[in-house]
This record gives sequence, structure tokens and C-alpha cells, in this order.
Amino acid sequence: MATSRLEHITIIGVGLLGGSVALAVKALDAEVRIAGVGRRRVSLDKALDVGAIDTAHLDAAEVGHRSDLVILATPVGAFAKHLRTIAPLLKPKAIVTDVGSTKSMVVRQAAGILGRSGRFVGSHPMAGSERKGVAFARADLFGGATCILTPTSSTPPSVTRRLKRFWSQLGMTVRQMTPGAHDKAMARISHFPHVLAGLLMLLPDKADLEVAATGFRDTTRLASGDPEMWRDILLTNRKAILAGIDAFDEQLMHLRDLLIRADAPGVEKFLTAAKRRRDATVAKLLPDLSTSE
Amino acid sequence: MATSRLEHITIIGVGLLGGSVALAVKALDAEVRIAGVGRRRVSLDKALDVGAIDTAHLDAAEVGHRSDLVILATPVGAFAKHLRTIAPLLKPKAIVTDVGSTKSMVVRQAAGILGRSGRFVGSHPMAGSERKGVAFARADLFGGATCILTPTSSTPPSVTRRLKRFWSQLGMTVRQMTPGAHDKAMARISHFPHVLAGLLMLLPDKADLEVAATGFRDTTRLASGDPEMWRDILLTNRKAILAGIDAFDEQLMHLRDLLIRADAPGVEKFLTAAKRRRDATVAKLLPDLSTSE
Repeated sequence: MATSRLEHITIIGVGLLGGSVALAVKALDAEVRIAGVGRRRVSLDKALDVGAIDTAHLDAAEVGHRSDLVILATPVGAFAKHLRTIAPLLKPKAIVTDVGSTKSMVVRQAAGILGRSGRFVGSHPMAGSERKGVAFARADLFGGATCILTPTSSTPPSVTRRLKRFWSQLGMTVRQMTPGAHDKAMARISHFPHVLAGLLMLLPDKADLEVAATGFRDTTRLASGDPEMWRDILLTNRKAILAGIDAFDEQLMHLRDLLIRADAPGVEKFLTAAKRRRDATVAKLLPDLSTSE
Repeated sequence: MATSRLEHITIIGVGLLGGSVALAVKALDAEVRIAGVGRRRVSLDKALDVGAIDTAHLDAAEVGHRSDLVILATPVGAFAKHLRTIAPLLKPKAIVTDVGSTKSMVVRQAAGILGRSGRFVGSHPMAGSERKGVAFARADLFGGATCILTPTSSTPPSVTRRLKRFWSQLGMTVRQMTPGAHDKAMARISHFPHVLAGLLMLLPDKADLEVAATGFRDTTRLASGDPEMWRDILLTNRKAILAGIDAFDEQLMHLRDLLIRADAPGVEKFLTAAKRRRDATVAKLLPDLSTSE
């Protein structure tokens, strides 16, 4: 693969995402050397066992100097610590990226720590699972999914190009957005839906949950995500999420008014608009798995 | 089948649900005579074609007198009209039920129209689809799902028993609840989630929807439901839904405060509570189809 120029890859955080990147790279080119960095020996051993990584390290300092590409795959809150560790060790041409779900804060933070050399470019491979850990990692996790890159004005085009090729080779469709545009979009299509799913999950009485059907199951699915990872996502993108909450709440109050007034045409108009929009966009691009309620 | 005593069944509204009831009954006992009542000739013809019904009628008055069981399967808003039509024609032992998703108003309305003889008992077979029409009807739509019966103090136990047997024979697990308890539970596990899905669907900019992934797809799935049917559901259960909206909004504002204060432990506590509750209930009873985000 064209990771021929990426002979050494370091993956910090060898869980579901980091492990899947490693397995996908190995599947394409078994010659690439992958160093895994983690905070728990047992996870690293599992990553060695499944053949995701070649060497295991509890400290990124051991491998920062030889990496052509460093991929941060821990919860976002731990990025700064690792960036500070590797910053003085990195080769001049090394590229640093991540697989996190928020970008503005991370890109700003990385520029502050690594300098404005542009060696950090944010990546958001939009694949994952409610499952956690390298045991669930799969070489094909990214196939067919979208990866959003968030280069800035200080990113050399060649760096963006190399990273774009890297994700494309793992089977992803790569798109570019600014970190701010990425975060605004994600707040509304991912992060706020996660908040909604959690709140909705806590709303019914326990007895009511016994008669919940597939509609409730699917609407709340995101609430089974990893709390630590999502805590970091919500906090690092809280400005955009708060804007989403306020926009949502305004519409919720409007709908509340329609119900109080028993405004049948108004309610139907709302339902029709939502159905039309969904059927023309999301449901078309990603067919529903289940259509039963 | 024990519908031996239910020789003639009338189904008013031969769409997905009515058609599936008909096909399921026919699959068990081809001798049962099923009359289909609809407002559109073309749907009735399709129902005849697929063998769901034996006779087709544009007016329930034609078959009210010979029905042992009448099942209302139109949108809830049309129930009253049909009940008024059949009320003077019904045999003394005939049972009337429905397949609607709200119960308090319907049960009250039916008692008012049919008298307090107890011949109406609300049924809510919790199966369905975003798809509409008899073309998508299936004999096995109800297999394994729950059906909630809502008898009242004036319902003769024998009527409840017969109806319970009817739904059990279609493969459903039958539970009993009061109409009020049913509506409160449904407001929170079905009707309000539908409202949420619709509001969420309308929140992002159109361009953002292009990068929506399976999480957004699943959280908004309910928004593809039939607007006319859901308009009636939301309006006939608006009191319980409004209570759900207010309870939800209070929690949303609490979460908003946590984000404004960047309260990491508070956010994590919320996410953990939602995950634990989901993993112990809904996700256990109804395994997720997709675990990818």
C-alpha cells in the first residue's frame, strides 16, 4: 500500500477504533510496523494476540521518535497528555492525526502543543460500535463509511493528501470540512442525538420499559455508548451542542403548543415535513435495517 | 382455531395492520370468513387479491349484522364514524376491538357509542412498520410481539378471555393494562419518541445530513411513520404526551446546565445511568440489530 512511506505507525489507544485501524492496515500491508500504546497491559496483550500490533508500550515516549504516522485513538480528553509526550520526539515529516468525534478543540490544542508546523490534521472516521475494546476490532470496520478530514489553513496540502490516501485505502470515502463546520454538523447529527437517546432512556418508569418495542430500542440505541468516551465528546463540543439544544428546545415548545391547541393540521404538517425530509435523505443513503415498530 | 366461535370477522381498514391480522387468521383457519371494509376500492381489491379478505365493502353497514368480531384498523380519528355505523346492527354477543396505539379516548368514545355493554375492548398489538398498505401485510407480523388489552370494570371477563385467546393464537404475548396506564406508558416509550425523532430530523442543515451515519438513521427512524396515523395518535393521547414533554424538557434543561458548567462528573453520571438502564432492559429484551454508529 502507499503506506510504503508510512513504515512505522503508532496507535495510541488500542481499543475498538485503534485496533480496527491496525487490523485494516495489516490486512492491506503486513509489512507496516505498528506500535500500540495503551494504559492497560491486558488490552495491549490482546492487541498483540489478535495481530493488530507488533510492539506494545505503556508510554508513547518509547516510540514517538520512529513514527511516520501517529494516530490518537484514546478518549479525546487524554490527547493533550500524549501529544506533550511525543511532541519533542517526532521526526520532521511525521504526521499526527486522531480518530475522535470532535475537532475544533482538538485541532487548536494540537497546534498549541506541536507547533504550527501543520503536522496535526484531525480525522473523524465515522464508524464505530457501542462495543468497546480491541476484542471487537475488525479490519473491515471502516469499509464504506465516511471519514472527515479537518485540515486548516496551516496544513500543507501534501499532508492532507497523504492522510486522505491513508483513509481511502482503508475503504473510506474522505471528505474535508473545517473543524468548526465539522463540529456544528456533528453536534446535530451525532452528539445531540446521543444526549436525546440518553434522556429518553431515563424518561419512562421501569415497568413501562417492559412493553417497549423496537421503535424505542432504536431511538435509544446510542445511549448504550461508552460513557467515558461520550463525556469527552460532549464536553469538547459543548458550544455547538448547546446551540443544538436551544434550537431543538424552541421547536419542542412549538410542537407542545400545537398539542395544547389540538392543532391537527399543524401536527400533521410537522409529521409530514419530518417524514419527507428523512425519506429523501437519511433513509435513502442508509436504508433502515428494521422497519417494524 | 378457537375462532370457531368467531366465524365472521369484519376488519375495518385493510392496510398493513388490518391486512396482517386477516392473513394471520386465514393462515390459522381458512374457514373463517373475513369481510374487509375500506374507503378505497383499489386497496380492497388488493386485499382480495392477496387472499386476506373474502368480501370487500365500502360501508361497514353491509356487514355489521353478521360479525362475531369487528376489528377497527383505520387511523384512530375514523373510529367514531364506523362505530356509529355498526352500533345498531351488531349481534348481542359480538365483540368489537381495535388495533390503535392510544386507548383512553377510544375506550371512552366506544362506550359512549356502543353503550356500556362492554362489547368494546381496546387492543394494541405492538407490531407494525413504517410501510403502509395491504401490499406489505404479512401473516407473521405479530409473531413474538406484545399485545396490550385494556378492558375496563364494565368488560365481562369472558369477552376479555376470548379476545386474549384471539391475539395469543396470532403468536402474541398478551398483557392487560388500564387504558390510562397504557396511554401513559405509550406516551413515553412510543409517542414522545416519535415526536423526538421528527424534531431531530428537522434540526440539521441539509448539507449536514450528507454525513449522517447509522446513529442518526436509527435515532430518527420513527419519523418515517405515516403522518396521518401519527397525527391521530398524538392528538388522542396529547395529555400524556404533554406530561412526557414537560418531564423531558426539565431533564434537557438540567443536562444543558451540566454542559454550560462543563461538569464532567455530572455528564458522565448521566451517560452512565442511561447506558446501565438501557443495557439492563431494552437492549436485553430486544437485541440491537446494528451496533455500528
